[in-house]
Amino acid sequence: MKLTILGCYAATPRTLTNPTSQVLEIKNHMFLIDCGEGTQVQLRKHKIKFSRINHIFISHLHGDHFFGLPGLVSTFRLLGRDKEMHIYGPKGIKEAVTLLLKLGDSWTNYQLYFHELTSAEKELIYEDEKVTVETIPLNHRVYTNGFLFKEKLGERKLNVDAVKYHEIDKAYFQNIKKGKDVVTEMGEIIANAELSFDPVKPRSYAFCSDTAFKPDIIAQIKEVDVLYHESTFLESEKHLAEKTKHATAKEAAEIAKKANAGTLILGHYSTRYKSISLFKEQAEEIFDNVLLADDGKCFEF
Amino acid sequence: MKLTILGCYAATPRTLTNPTSQVLEIKNHMFLIDCGEGTQVQLRKHKIKFSRINHIFISHLHGDHFFGLPGLVSTFRLLGRDKEMHIYGPKGIKEAVTLLLKLGDSWTNYQLYFHELTSAEKELIYEDEKVTVETIPLNHRVYTNGFLFKEKLGERKLNVDAVKYHEIDKAYFQNIKKGKDVVTEMGEIIANAELSFDPVKPRSYAFCSDTAFKPDIIAQIKEVDVLYHESTFLESEKHLAEKTKHATAKEAAEIAKKANAGTLILGHYSTRYKSISLFKEQAEEIFDNVLLADDGKCFEF
Repeated sequence: MKLTILGCYAATPRTLTNPTSQVLEIKNHMFLIDCGEGTQVQLRKHKIKFSRINHIFISHLHGDHFFGLPGLVSTFRLLGRDKEMHIYGPKGIKEAVTLLLKLGDSWTNYQLYFHELTSAEKELIYEDEKVTVETIPLNHRVYTNGFLFKEKLGERKLNVDAVKYHEIDKAYFQNIKKGKDVVTEMGEIIANAELSFDPVKPRSYAFCSDTAFKPDIIAQIKEVDVLYHESTFLESEKHLAEKTKHATAKEAAEIAKKANAGTLILGHYSTRYKSISLFKEQAEEIFDNVLLADDGKCFEF
Repeated sequence: MKLTILGCYAATPRTLTNPTSQVLEIKNHMFLIDCGEGTQVQLRKHKIKFSRINHIFISHLHGDHFFGLPGLVSTFRLLGRDKEMHIYGPKGIKEAVTLLLKLGDSWTNYQLYFHELTSAEKELIYEDEKVTVETIPLNHRVYTNGFLFKEKLGERKLNVDAVKYHEIDKAYFQNIKKGKDVVTEMGEIIANAELSFDPVKPRSYAFCSDTAFKPDIIAQIKEVDVLYHESTFLESEKHLAEKTKHATAKEAAEIAKKANAGTLILGHYSTRYKSISLFKEQAEEIFDNVLLADDGKCFEF
């Protein structure tokens, strides 16, 4: 998995900071998460191929999370896209994007599917043979979902030495990878555990922005490998976090600790702070493994 | 008058080029003309105070001319704006901006007035004691207006030596500036021409983008000091200009020549061209005083 932060600052785009958008590379997918104004320029800057993006997940309809979407949808057309595109986001997102296109007498020359979300409960919104995506219902001023991206458990790995030793024919390899035992022509049973190794542990990534401190997401994201959790404010502005339904760095760390996350990535910093280093300091009082998102940063895990 | 080009490239925003937006400083106004995605960042980059913008003119509803508007309107609120704001643009602009705000359960804490345009004829859309703004109906794929900004003829200038010589009391100065003669206490008439100079010649600026070659705008912009005319294509792509209802550099120059404009500024270049210097070369075959717009350039006149 590789996470590229295109923007991770709250509120307005500025000369050197961008509103929320990130690209998650997982099992050959490039999932775009949120799309603040300027996202298409950030994609170019970080040399992410537009044609590799087929799924866009929008957490909520505040401008700093989706005002870049109509422009991106238009640019896909100008670039001659013909592959279909799927957009997942709160109800209303279809009306917004299609109105803006219609006013410009524009259209897309590719199939554009909107998957509008309204549920207050977690939902499975995407699944293929290697990956699932669930919503994580959050608590913000408007209807908001985080997203939980999970790799599926892959095939077992062939123990090459063992299959050689037992002189097992290639024809059995697929079954071994699927966990089956082998019955030889002599009727002997060779246990799968002897012929294969456990598959690589599937990884998971939870994106939680924007939200107030919401401990009831913990059960869903338990043992997640990487948690991106918004931390708009420091402790000194905890009252603003409560008022605006955002979280502090410490609250993000509290969630990470209770969920036993592998790593916590902080982001969605209020632009009032000159430096973001205090976010890490304050979160580390609660949780050990804290990283700071910043525009342009890549995380591989 | 001072014109700051925030963006002057067609189609999509890119790492180093921006879609259309410019700021015209005229008689203490800061008029924002068009507002492509990223305009608010360009405003910051060029240190233009957001609070000085009270009037926004949108030519048409293609994304590269207005997708930056919802974000700008939202940012005005975040910056605590309380002064009213006027937006002039094609019918539909109000629905678009208000829908996007409504979806985010957002509002403005300042009065936001939309002046929706539908006329195919030129209209006076703004007037105060020093400036007028008229629409210039253009010919593009969707309903589009250019804008003609004109200073009004100011007061006559006092001839300080002459009023001293005639020992004229200060009480008469306002009337002299308004062009009136002075009758002395002895009954003598002193002609205004002897006591004042002609006012500074009022200047004018015409913004014409996007449009196909449209000679019938010439009468309206006759003798304009500065004409910004789109030139999306070079001669080699004249067929594309016709197809997409854009103009070539030569066609822009043709308009400038026939209107007897003082200066022609070219812009709205297609991003297909590596260099923009050929636009100037081709326009100069027709018209002498050609300048090239470019992002960040300022023109004072």
